[in-house]
Amino acid sequence: MRILGIDPGLNTTGYGVLDFEGRAPRLVEAGVVRGRCNAEKSELGERVKEVHDGVAEVIATLKPEVLAIEELYTHYDRPTTAILMGHARGVIVLAAAEAGIAVVSYRATQIKKTITGNGHAAKWQMQEAIRRELNLSELPEPPDVADALAIALCHGYLSRHEQMAKRE
Amino acid sequence: MRILGIDPGLNTTGYGVLDFEGRAPRLVEAGVVRGRCNAEKSELGERVKEVHDGVAEVIATLKPEVLAIEELYTHYDRPTTAILMGHARGVIVLAAAEAGIAVVSYRATQIKKTITGNGHAAKWQMQEAIRRELNLSELPEPPDVADALAIALCHGYLSRHEQMAKRE
Repeated sequence: MRILGIDPGLNTTGYGVLDFEGRAPRLVEAGVVRGRCNAEKSELGERVKEVHDGVAEVIATLKPEVLAIEELYTHYDRPTTAILMGHARGVIVLAAAEAGIAVVSYRATQIKKTITGNGHAAKWQMQEAIRRELNLSELPEPPDVADALAIALCHGYLSRHEQMAKRE
Repeated sequence: MRILGIDPGLNTTGYGVLDFEGRAPRLVEAGVVRGRCNAEKSELGERVKEVHDGVAEVIATLKPEVLAIEELYTHYDRPTTAILMGHARGVIVLAAAEAGIAVVSYRATQIKKTITGNGHAAKWQMQEAIRRELNLSELPEPPDVADALAIALCHGYLSRHEQMAKRE
């Protein structure tokens, strides 16, 4: 199964594509869908278009079967950030719907627990677990890429357990 | 000038297209971009796709020069609603960017003040003002359509004043 994990944001949207076939997950490709210098200055329309088109291109090129993304959550402390994140999430879910691939979502604590065993793991613990699981020599940068890989890993592990459960 | 006003929502997105040419604004078309019965049950991907495709179709058919939408605001009391509204707003702004038309936004109080003279006008006062301004025999229904027309009217009036000011 090929999984596309996405960490949504209007400034930087991280993505990570993993193959779950044999024993260990394999990193196919990871990066950010945009990285323009004037990102924060450009218009909202341009920004959502770059996020949408970037994700659509990743889907068209790498052909994942499923898109995994963090569940809706509410920053009570920074509601405007949460609403802007909603804009990015909306066009990402649209790109998946246009390509006819399923969208699955997980809570942040569920992702942390699945990757590290601890739902409240620190950022460095998550990054180290991802580096080890994917057998990488260095940490994926920027953090948005590591977050995207974490979501893809989470879905891969939970699907595998589900499959094992079904076989029994 | 032809203006498309949009009242965004994942369940119902209202739209209203107005022409501002002569003395009085003229209603070209208004309605909702979706009205499926099972709206609340369908997947998020389907819902954002219907909103996006519906708005894109209105733009392609009626060729407005500008899309007017309420400014980002934050429901501190219902943050999840605000984030879901962000999803709808994101794909609407995307549809405008794809068609190459500008997006303008106004605060709710600014829209009310422009239409009725009172930034805290009641809903019925807004609806009555819209009915009168557009010379309609009945109130536009559902309320999302009236809200979309209010945003379009607001932009039309404020642009006209801006033009008058420029000419002086």
